Amino acid sequence: MPLTVGVIGGGQLARMMIPAAVALGIDLRVFAENEGSSAGLAATQVGDYTDAEQVLAFAAGVDVITFDHEHVPQDVLAALVAAGVQVHPGPAPLAVAQDKLVMRERLAAIGLPVPDWARIESSAQLQAFLDEHGGAGVVKTPKGGYDGKGVRVVRSADAVDDWFADHGVLLVEELVEFRRELAQMVARRPSGEIGVWPVVESVQRDGVCAEVIAPAPGTAGRLADVAADIAITVAESLGVTGVLAVELFETTDDRLLINELAMRPHNTGHWTIDGARTSQFEQHLRAVLDLPLGGTGCHKEWSVMVNVLGGPVGATMTDRYPIALADQPTVKMHSYNKDSRPGRKVGHVTAIGDDLDEVAYQARAAAAIFE
Amino acid sequence: MPLTVGVIGGGQLARMMIPAAVALGIDLRVFAENEGSSAGLAATQVGDYTDAEQVLAFAAGVDVITFDHEHVPQDVLAALVAAGVQVHPGPAPLAVAQDKLVMRERLAAIGLPVPDWARIESSAQLQAFLDEHGGAGVVKTPKGGYDGKGVRVVRSADAVDDWFADHGVLLVEELVEFRRELAQMVARRPSGEIGVWPVVESVQRDGVCAEVIAPAPGTAGRLADVAADIAITVAESLGVTGVLAVELFETTDDRLLINELAMRPHNTGHWTIDGARTSQFEQHLRAVLDLPLGGTGCHKEWSVMVNVLGGPVGATMTDRYPIALADQPTVKMHSYNKDSRPGRKVGHVTAIGDDLDEVAYQARAAAAIFE
Repeated sequence: MPLTVGVIGGGQLARMMIPAAVALGIDLRVFAENEGSSAGLAATQVGDYTDAEQVLAFAAGVDVITFDHEHVPQDVLAALVAAGVQVHPGPAPLAVAQDKLVMRERLAAIGLPVPDWARIESSAQLQAFLDEHGGAGVVKTPKGGYDGKGVRVVRSADAVDDWFADHGVLLVEELVEFRRELAQMVARRPSGEIGVWPVVESVQRDGVCAEVIAPAPGTAGRLADVAADIAITVAESLGVTGVLAVELFETTDDRLLINELAMRPHNTGHWTIDGARTSQFEQHLRAVLDLPLGGTGCHKEWSVMVNVLGGPVGATMTDRYPIALADQPTVKMHSYNKDSRPGRKVGHVTAIGDDLDEVAYQARAAAAIFE
Repeated sequence: MPLTVGVIGGGQLARMMIPAAVALGIDLRVFAENEGSSAGLAATQVGDYTDAEQVLAFAAGVDVITFDHEHVPQDVLAALVAAGVQVHPGPAPLAVAQDKLVMRERLAAIGLPVPDWARIESSAQLQAFLDEHGGAGVVKTPKGGYDGKGVRVVRSADAVDDWFADHGVLLVEELVEFRRELAQMVARRPSGEIGVWPVVESVQRDGVCAEVIAPAPGTAGRLADVAADIAITVAESLGVTGVLAVELFETTDDRLLINELAMRPHNTGHWTIDGARTSQFEQHLRAVLDLPLGGTGCHKEWSVMVNVLGGPVGATMTDRYPIALADQPTVKMHSYNKDSRPGRKVGHVTAIGDDLDEVAYQARAAAAIFE
């Protein structure tokens, strides 16, 4: 019997697990939300991941269940565990990833560096926080945010009244003065082994990851060690299995603060497909199957990944291949087989090489052709 | 509409096109011989590739038809072309690949370097050839041979009487005194662009490719140029589209002679998946779609690929992953999801790096764990 991994969610992260599964000879099965999903090639079931019965049926016969996203409800996760299904990451770490208030509480309890934060239930509490933090803050809905959604920079106490009405409880954080954003990815097996990629720089635009430079320039030495230590501590303290991404602020006063966590392959790790010995997708499969992890060294000194954000409605990346592939023959193109909408992530490109300026130019030039 | 490629044949070559197709967002559809084929994940039809009606039905709606093997009969290819289907490689070059006598005739007519050869229909003709070539020769059946099958080294004229009975006509070649075997892979688009990977050394054991070293040691300069020129001339003269492998003898008197041709991704190109900017599978898809070709540079100085030949019946490569992945964390493992039989190619492993001894050790050690 081949090793079998079930993935809940049919987005591009599940899609990008397919090549790794094919190479390793792993039977990858995807539980997709709808027909025609990005990972549709591997979909064996289409349904509602909040329905425990459907998810249990999907899980029959797989060696492990893992995820394309962190939104599977705790009662469904509990039903899987009760049925004896291996689930990685497990319900406990996922509970931390699913609620930003829980995350802040747990990270603070562990003693990890986080921005100042507070749990708020009223505009009065928000005002008090703003008063203590120079009149500005970042308010986040505890659940359901991604790619800049569910996040607002606020400078007045009434700026999130609608969210109080919808969510009741919110998270507010200090507006961190940061030099740049970094991300540290690690993978952890249930039996404990941890693999660490180099820390990367993540360039955000409008709250969305636009570009990743690996490794983050100037991070050899102390900064890389601190970033790795933080991510390893998160993985071990929370019992994360599979791939973990820790988004970090590098502050203007030279500290690293944890911004967000993602317990799955992550946009800031896409460069590993073309730039590292072991991609985050292969490593995730190895980790959730509790197989030995792969080397995390890089092919070249630099990798630069640029997201392709949707162009004209109805167009696809492949329409532009005749131009893009000719213009940048060494850049690796990745299309998620999604129809374009302005701002939608429809793919990414990665360039690798030993000259950062050249590599960045190539990746940006290729991405620009698709936009 | 995504770009759509139809592949006839569901073996490991079709299987290894899947990761490249997923990355590029190409809709890959496989016409497999049977359920549970190596490329089953992408199979949209199971049937008989010698039946023109079935193949035409499969071809409806694809942008191009290409192949996992060279055995599709000419009448089926003609039916595809007559129906307006793009077929790459086309019927004319495939006719050369399908018949070793035709191949020798065409290559000789082009003036390319080939071993001495003759078309023989009787043991008397074989005896005459042996008399002229030191009493030894290599007899090949014109059709259907692979991995050492359909090939016999002969030293007496009655050694292939059974084949005369079955095939009527045979090919005999001189027994070339060679230092080693090389292979040159190129890719060619219908519109003419050609991509060239470095020439590699192919180590054969019992007529089967056991190991490939890329590039072939000591080939920088003249030898590499001659090998590339030969393959480019073959591709252009025969009108090959897609990937072409030219197997070569490096003779003890420093000549390169063409041994075999394969008009498809080839075992001697598997190293490109992990070792080159553009794998032979991605390049084949780009070429048959007449898209611009990718760069053929290498990640590291050396890549070594070792085939995994089947171990105990019923075992799979993945059974040994706990040992193999721990022992060789930087070696890339590829399983074709085939049940083992002694001697059957069930997968391969590739190591890359800048120290050939180390890279070769890693790849051989990893492969040995599976055998």
